[in-house]
Amino acid sequence: MADQRAQSGEDIRLTGDIRPASVEPAGAPGAVGSLSVPAIRWDESAEGPVLVLLDQTRLPAEEAELVCTDPQGLVQAIRALAVRGAPLLGVAGAYGVALAAARGFDVDEAADSLAGARPTAVNLASGVRRAQEAYRAGLAGGDEDLAAAAALAAARSLHGEDAEASARMAEHGLRLLDELLPGGQHRILTHCNTGALVSGGEGTAFAVALAAHRAGSLRRLWVDETRPLLQGARLTAYEAARNGMAYTLLTDNAAGSLFASGEVDAVLIGADRIAADGSVANKVGSYPLAVLARYHHVPFIVVAPVTTVDPRTPDGASIEVEQRPGHEVTELTAPRALSAGVEAGGGIPVAPLGTQAYNPAFDVTPPDLVTAIVTERGVVAPVTAEALGELCDSSRQSTMS
Amino acid sequence: MADQRAQSGEDIRLTGDIRPASVEPAGAPGAVGSLSVPAIRWDESAEGPVLVLLDQTRLPAEEAELVCTDPQGLVQAIRALAVRGAPLLGVAGAYGVALAAARGFDVDEAADSLAGARPTAVNLASGVRRAQEAYRAGLAGGDEDLAAAAALAAARSLHGEDAEASARMAEHGLRLLDELLPGGQHRILTHCNTGALVSGGEGTAFAVALAAHRAGSLRRLWVDETRPLLQGARLTAYEAARNGMAYTLLTDNAAGSLFASGEVDAVLIGADRIAADGSVANKVGSYPLAVLARYHHVPFIVVAPVTTVDPRTPDGASIEVEQRPGHEVTELTAPRALSAGVEAGGGIPVAPLGTQAYNPAFDVTPPDLVTAIVTERGVVAPVTAEALGELCDSSRQSTMS
Repeated sequence: MADQRAQSGEDIRLTGDIRPASVEPAGAPGAVGSLSVPAIRWDESAEGPVLVLLDQTRLPAEEAELVCTDPQGLVQAIRALAVRGAPLLGVAGAYGVALAAARGFDVDEAADSLAGARPTAVNLASGVRRAQEAYRAGLAGGDEDLAAAAALAAARSLHGEDAEASARMAEHGLRLLDELLPGGQHRILTHCNTGALVSGGEGTAFAVALAAHRAGSLRRLWVDETRPLLQGARLTAYEAARNGMAYTLLTDNAAGSLFASGEVDAVLIGADRIAADGSVANKVGSYPLAVLARYHHVPFIVVAPVTTVDPRTPDGASIEVEQRPGHEVTELTAPRALSAGVEAGGGIPVAPLGTQAYNPAFDVTPPDLVTAIVTERGVVAPVTAEALGELCDSSRQSTMS
Repeated sequence: MADQRAQSGEDIRLTGDIRPASVEPAGAPGAVGSLSVPAIRWDESAEGPVLVLLDQTRLPAEEAELVCTDPQGLVQAIRALAVRGAPLLGVAGAYGVALAAARGFDVDEAADSLAGARPTAVNLASGVRRAQEAYRAGLAGGDEDLAAAAALAAARSLHGEDAEASARMAEHGLRLLDELLPGGQHRILTHCNTGALVSGGEGTAFAVALAAHRAGSLRRLWVDETRPLLQGARLTAYEAARNGMAYTLLTDNAAGSLFASGEVDAVLIGADRIAADGSVANKVGSYPLAVLARYHHVPFIVVAPVTTVDPRTPDGASIEVEQRPGHEVTELTAPRALSAGVEAGGGIPVAPLGTQAYNPAFDVTPPDLVTAIVTERGVVAPVTAEALGELCDSSRQSTMS
């Protein structure tokens, strides 16, 4: 059912309260990385606990918070991409279970609904299950309040681990860049959005670019706009601008020209799911970049936490790729904006009425096109099932290379 | 100056009269191919001769005609892409010279201005020069009216030849497809717009796909939306729909997934300029398709009239690539529509204010990635400078293969 909803042409409406973000001063406890408000936070309001999301469908036009008071509101927010990005979806899913428990909803039902809200990111289901297991374990003692507290504690732990993982990925990734491209002054091409908006910390691929920027070794961040939903133009450009990075936006089409003129030193992307053989599902348009990178002998680097690796998915062919509604392609949709009074984010048709669209949300890059996978536990290069399995099994926080 | 204008961020305004197209019955003299109104036509109005364009910036929302009464109006229409496509730009340029002559403008000045309106399509300058030479030759007799008539005759000849060339390219291209992919039921991927909207006839690459459709051998036309200006979504989908072809629209990003799943049998694109060595400048995004096609062993076929080959451009590196304004990337622009009262086609910002964009209009595909070049005189395969030179020198209407 969840998939049918996501694949239908109907617009997904958000049901939570929406309010302008109360921008906190830089360095305030709520501020994460370079965002003025965190991408996600748990809040104990007078009416009970709520989950507050930075509504990503409104960026960069507007920083607005979406307040979820029940798990179904969060499911809708996930489907509408108000909250998105593989690591953050895991955190959101865990908090969603905690919210269901705290508010007295059926926890198992909420967990199933949350886990199925989007099919490709493995982190979502894994975050949901972690909080659900904590809840069940807590419930064994017979006290529902304690069980709810256990679910929330699990969500908070995951949130904190994710922030920590970002920092480790940034370190490992920067070291890898410096090894692969000695001399610094990297020109890095990235796709979609992989920064503080997708993570409890500073993100995955973007966190590595940000680390290079802080180390003075980033010459330019090339930002693919990332059709159809323009996460690059809207979100990565927003994060790059906030961080004062040298960045240039381009249509996904124009990446080929940059490769051809030798202006890309490395490609850095995130991942929504990594199969056991090292196949990488990521935002549609990643695979063409991998083929271009191979053709031009440019490193193609995937940055993702180990929770993105799914040992139960043996290979690329086994990855379910979410098909999204055709209107994302046939209509142009501007960022939703409270100020404009446009709540539904209604699109402007560009293609003739009745045009059928092919709109996979992700594509799959085979391991032989991936130069390296950077995780919080270290770097896998070359990418093999053995090396990846070893890294995931390892409980030590050590670096492999 | 022309280039500076085209590269600046300012919006180009059209100055001609705009009126709803007077849709003519199918088969009427004015109707060309599958369009209800021709993409370009010369008209002798009561106030003097005018050049009437189907305003392509308004499609598919609206079929409206743009009436040019002077060469400067045409220059603006060319820059704003109201008229576009390499072969049609040649025809438009020639008519523009004829318009200047008929209306008593300085013909040489008009010719220079028209030839420089866009830098990449060689056909534009070559069409302009052809009408200008006819005018000059006519002027040698001392009679300006005769000279103007000679310029118009040259434009009309070019227009007719272009229609004839379309038909020949479609024949040669279909034969090539059947040779390369015996058994028919082709799934063809195309980029940008190459149909009746870019030509005096049915176009270049699109004309081949249309011939396959009519022969019952087209299984599906995959239409790249073609960012940033969405010529695929707006124009190719429009032409495919009008012709009753089985077509599916996709973001340029999603082409990789189609290749990976074996759903592309051939790529067919047009060209804006072909260098003497066979390097092909075409709409940005063509080169990534060529690399993907090579990686997946899929034929990559360029369809263009011989006027697109520029023997004075030795190689790909010598091709000047037009850089277009950044706002085409940083803002979403819906098709202009009279009914909506939106004259300027104002964009909706999607990227943060001040975002710098890289926006080349074209990219260059080296000859070794091109399986074949189909012209009205025959097919060049493999693509070598020798074979291409021989074809262009040849005055015989013969097929090489």
